[in-house]
Amino acid sequence: MPSIFTKIINGDIPCYKIAEDNNFLAFLDINPNAKGHTLCIPKKEVDKIFDLDEKTYMGLMAFSRKVGKAIEQAIDCKRVGITVIGLEVPHVHVHLIPLHTMKNATFQYKESLSSGEFETIAEKIRSKLK
Amino acid sequence: MPSIFTKIINGDIPCYKIAEDNNFLAFLDINPNAKGHTLCIPKKEVDKIFDLDEKTYMGLMAFSRKVGKAIEQAIDCKRVGITVIGLEVPHVHVHLIPLHTMKNATFQYKESLSSGEFETIAEKIRSKLK
Repeated sequence: MPSIFTKIINGDIPCYKIAEDNNFLAFLDINPNAKGHTLCIPKKEVDKIFDLDEKTYMGLMAFSRKVGKAIEQAIDCKRVGITVIGLEVPHVHVHLIPLHTMKNATFQYKESLSSGEFETIAEKIRSKLK
Repeated sequence: MPSIFTKIINGDIPCYKIAEDNNFLAFLDINPNAKGHTLCIPKKEVDKIFDLDEKTYMGLMAFSRKVGKAIEQAIDCKRVGITVIGLEVPHVHVHLIPLHTMKNATFQYKESLSSGEFETIAEKIRSKLK
């Protein structure tokens, strides 16, 4: 069965899209640690990040850097953090999280946003991507 | 004043070293979320990860992948996660954390290890690096 992220890639589940190229997709996390929390994924469905072939891993990291820099410009925060865990969805995903305090990095505090707020945030981040 | 990590790079503060090359250093976190928790840092002292120039960022991520794969071979865990926060030490550091459950990723649970245990873990990870 395809992962929930493969369903998003295929358009079977909607997302607040931030960026996409042939190999990678970025979209807002709908259960965010902070406003602007974004996921970057490879289109190739692999469970663990260190099982990605080197080219895909490096491509994902370069893609995440571009998106991360755009988030730092778009969202008021101290910096954007990176987290890769993957114990829940078996499809590599890089969390890019605007950090204000340590609580934004713990995955125990969550923001509740309306779809309008998600749309506004996504548009603001997209506007910073060159 | 040099960061605590620059002091480690310069040998002014000791560490349980895992790997080193001209540009990067990996060593055990002495306040680990789990056994084998390792930090990868650039020798260049930069505060925020997305402020690293592209070459240094990509080099750090390639270096972290090599170390992460060695940790996955050396340490019994479900997978190795990646976290970059940096709200405490203003010198980029990539946390590589052996994950058993989500608690290892939250930075709220810590392992207490003796120096002998740190030495044994470091040696085991080093033995898996080619």
